[in-house]
Amino acid sequence: MSHPFDPGYVAEPFLTLCADYPEASVYPPNQFRLEWGPIFHRGRLDGSARVLVIGQDPAQHETVIRRTLVGEAGRRVQGFLAKLGITRRYVFINTYLYSVYGNVKAKTRKDATLIDYRNRWLNALLVGRQVEAVLALGQAADEAWQFWTATPAAQSVSVGYAAVTHPTQPESSSKGDKTKLAGATKKLLQNWNVALQALSPHVQHVDVPIPLGLYGERWSDGDRVAIPEFDVPAGLPAWMHEQDGWAKRTGVDALAKRRNITITVPKGIVT
Amino acid sequence: MSHPFDPGYVAEPFLTLCADYPEASVYPPNQFRLEWGPIFHRGRLDGSARVLVIGQDPAQHETVIRRTLVGEAGRRVQGFLAKLGITRRYVFINTYLYSVYGNVKAKTRKDATLIDYRNRWLNALLVGRQVEAVLALGQAADEAWQFWTATPAAQSVSVGYAAVTHPTQPESSSKGDKTKLAGATKKLLQNWNVALQALSPHVQHVDVPIPLGLYGERWSDGDRVAIPEFDVPAGLPAWMHEQDGWAKRTGVDALAKRRNITITVPKGIVT
Repeated sequence: MSHPFDPGYVAEPFLTLCADYPEASVYPPNQFRLEWGPIFHRGRLDGSARVLVIGQDPAQHETVIRRTLVGEAGRRVQGFLAKLGITRRYVFINTYLYSVYGNVKAKTRKDATLIDYRNRWLNALLVGRQVEAVLALGQAADEAWQFWTATPAAQSVSVGYAAVTHPTQPESSSKGDKTKLAGATKKLLQNWNVALQALSPHVQHVDVPIPLGLYGERWSDGDRVAIPEFDVPAGLPAWMHEQDGWAKRTGVDALAKRRNITITVPKGIVT
Repeated sequence: MSHPFDPGYVAEPFLTLCADYPEASVYPPNQFRLEWGPIFHRGRLDGSARVLVIGQDPAQHETVIRRTLVGEAGRRVQGFLAKLGITRRYVFINTYLYSVYGNVKAKTRKDATLIDYRNRWLNALLVGRQVEAVLALGQAADEAWQFWTATPAAQSVSVGYAAVTHPTQPESSSKGDKTKLAGATKKLLQNWNVALQALSPHVQHVDVPIPLGLYGERWSDGDRVAIPEFDVPAGLPAWMHEQDGWAKRTGVDALAKRRNITITVPKGIVT
């Protein structure tokens, strides 16, 4: 059985972007988990991407795999892309290189160095490339997009654009209340349906031609799609990209939690 | 500050070797931790390597970083290479792709598919390449080398060779007994001194010209060398390659331990 993998950062400008990146002077350690290092992207860097997704920040699964949006949020977006017929021609970056710790201050969000570095990624992925649609997840990603569209380089680029509710907003906003969760999920799916309809006409070069199917009022089978093996580094076991919930931050206090990632192989793998 | 990183598997035959590798039919799950996936190499795959190191199997730090010999054993070998003047022109592979669980049975060690796959790596790294010396760590690696030298492809290759005591053999053989540990360490360093003297004349193209310095009776400052940043994937935090002991297998029983890797950021990083 062959295991295709993501070759990573093999050509410019990505080699330089992944060697020279903003650190603590740009990303304050009281707002970001710098200690785990930056996480840059997921998906195609070879110019074949037709859809660009801008997420917010990496979490613990992303930290282990060293690719963005590989946990539950990523699976939901993977399902969104599949509804557009996009199963491979995509690329993801995040608004922030590091995992957010607490809240990001306005001053940090608007830091010129932070924005310039991110704009270099957006230039690399969009200027003179084939991307047809851009999807922003959450407010920070939408703001990142607005900052970029105001740059001179962006003026040559014409793509469809939609900003949607962040994929795990229902969970974070409902704090364990099942009724609230159902309501927030319904609202998110309505919001995502609007985005599907807005982006679909722009996405002309799909991987799998498929009639546009919309979301119902709750997640259905097939709405969440596993991360493909060809998106992750060589040699990673299947459960890392097929499953979620195997990495947790544990500890007796906030500092211990911040210093910890516990990886547990899902049940049924070791027999 | 620039952060050089290892580009990984970007050209043949390594692309194929890292996509098509032996799995459970070759590496029995009762002898290997297949659940964490294979770990292939560390160091130069671009033909610049002058020394090839064959280790035994990856452990938990290697599993997180996805490169071989990045923990304590790797640091000791890194120090050995430095004594030869080799700080960059090296490449490491392991005898086994997966972490050994318990003992490897003779039948597995001699499995033709297992040996053939490993020989494809050795061919890729040695035949028509510039390697001048090969170092085998422990008996399994020595046996791997003997299997390869018996192949037709090996007949065209002439290199210096030394098989040494495995770098963490003193710890594993002394089981917490400090006197035994000191004795085993002294013996290992004597053994490594013999290898240094045997290999040194073969290693003609060094990174840093340096007179051959031998080990004393115990580890000294400088005998253990941190893994360079340019050996690990993009974005990894410095503590992952500069420090050791940050990854542990924990759990209440053997199965829980087997399913777990707990990563803890070393003290002093998060402040």
